[in-house]
Amino acid sequence: MSLGKEFVAWVFTLGTEVVSGRVVNTNAAYLGRRLTLLGFEVLGAVSLVDDVRLISSFISHVLASEPELLVTTGGLGPTHDDVTLEALARALRVELRLNEEALKSIKEKYEVLKLPLTPERVKMAYMPEGCEVIPNEVGTAPGCIMKHGKTLIVSLPGVPRELESMWESYVEPRLKELGVRRVIAERSFRVSGVPESSAAKIVKEILRKYENVYVKTHPKGHEITAPVLEVYVQVFSKDLSEAEKIADEVSEELKKSLESIGGVIT
Amino acid sequence: MSLGKEFVAWVFTLGTEVVSGRVVNTNAAYLGRRLTLLGFEVLGAVSLVDDVRLISSFISHVLASEPELLVTTGGLGPTHDDVTLEALARALRVELRLNEEALKSIKEKYEVLKLPLTPERVKMAYMPEGCEVIPNEVGTAPGCIMKHGKTLIVSLPGVPRELESMWESYVEPRLKELGVRRVIAERSFRVSGVPESSAAKIVKEILRKYENVYVKTHPKGHEITAPVLEVYVQVFSKDLSEAEKIADEVSEELKKSLESIGGVIT
Repeated sequence: MSLGKEFVAWVFTLGTEVVSGRVVNTNAAYLGRRLTLLGFEVLGAVSLVDDVRLISSFISHVLASEPELLVTTGGLGPTHDDVTLEALARALRVELRLNEEALKSIKEKYEVLKLPLTPERVKMAYMPEGCEVIPNEVGTAPGCIMKHGKTLIVSLPGVPRELESMWESYVEPRLKELGVRRVIAERSFRVSGVPESSAAKIVKEILRKYENVYVKTHPKGHEITAPVLEVYVQVFSKDLSEAEKIADEVSEELKKSLESIGGVIT
Repeated sequence: MSLGKEFVAWVFTLGTEVVSGRVVNTNAAYLGRRLTLLGFEVLGAVSLVDDVRLISSFISHVLASEPELLVTTGGLGPTHDDVTLEALARALRVELRLNEEALKSIKEKYEVLKLPLTPERVKMAYMPEGCEVIPNEVGTAPGCIMKHGKTLIVSLPGVPRELESMWESYVEPRLKELGVRRVIAERSFRVSGVPESSAAKIVKEILRKYENVYVKTHPKGHEITAPVLEVYVQVFSKDLSEAEKIADEVSEELKKSLESIGGVIT
């Protein structure tokens, strides 16, 4: 996938409640999907418990590979276990500083109800040096965005409606400015009567023939007694109409080959 | 959490479809929850694209910390991008070898429909040296379990119904033999009228007072205009009745403190 290598992204969804399975990680799915549609190649989604050293060690590990983008969610709030920005500062070896713009926005929000600026509230304004504030129109904790070497780092809250609002109104427009050079076209269909182990050879041949094409089969029935596969085709290109054309071509070729070994397309 | 440090677990949910957000990662939630209830401290859940080098590098990174348990899901099937066991072998610096028991079970399954042992089918029987087979009664690809240093490594398929069946019938009984020494008790309730930034101080005081207690607040309303929090309490102990007692105590204390600053428990 030579077209995409320049635009690699990583997602960190932070929070003990995610890792321990008390919530299903819809944030990772949301970001993975949005980033893929924007042309990024998302290499990994990492969830970690709220531990400064652990988070900082994994962020460092990923930053060493110099991805274009690293997005974190969660851990920006007022509680003792909201430690994302502290961990990020540690990974970047920069100071955690009181950000005046963040403090101003937090102060204004609590002032509406005449609530004082307690240490817990002020805490949300401490950000790694060099961070720009991402406004949070839905909730309270502001996000932050900064460049570190080749990597753009974006930190957003973990509450889905805050994350999604900030992503769509602020982050995506910024990412579009980066000029990601690839677009994707997708196709998917179901085939019954073909075990995945039989489809494997057909898929391999297609991938040998086409560049910048990704095909994956997902077993939905039973491999031997009632095989059903979902076949997913993804095509990367610099040009959307070209991507769409190749996606159709690959899809048709796959369908024909699967039918030739007894598959029924549904 | 001194009680739990001996039983640390990591989860790897592997597959490009997970990372790119085409599926929501319910496997990570399932395993995180089951492991937590078994007394493990799950530190992280890592999803990676189907890339041998990337997966192997992250497994190595995690194994370096010598966790008690590392579970992988996905990437055991017959297709070109099912690379988990190859990556695992690389991380462990052992050979990937044809496992006769795995081969036998695969052969028997396909023989039912008189399907031949193609290279794609045989591929599922290649396992890191030292692996024991975990039978797959629901699907085809067998799992594998092995000890590496202090770490028990378990690899299971990514299809949820196969994973869950193998987990419950085979893996959990094995894990129980490890003798995890802690149990957990949980409580949760909702409180309205208290912003998370106000609850933060109360939670911090509770955590200072009690050992082996974890409390987390999850904002469900709006921090300032309509605050609603879900308060979650988890207590670890060697003894279940002690854990339950402390969980009740902590819960009641939290409720009282939250009510004293205007909270309404719901």
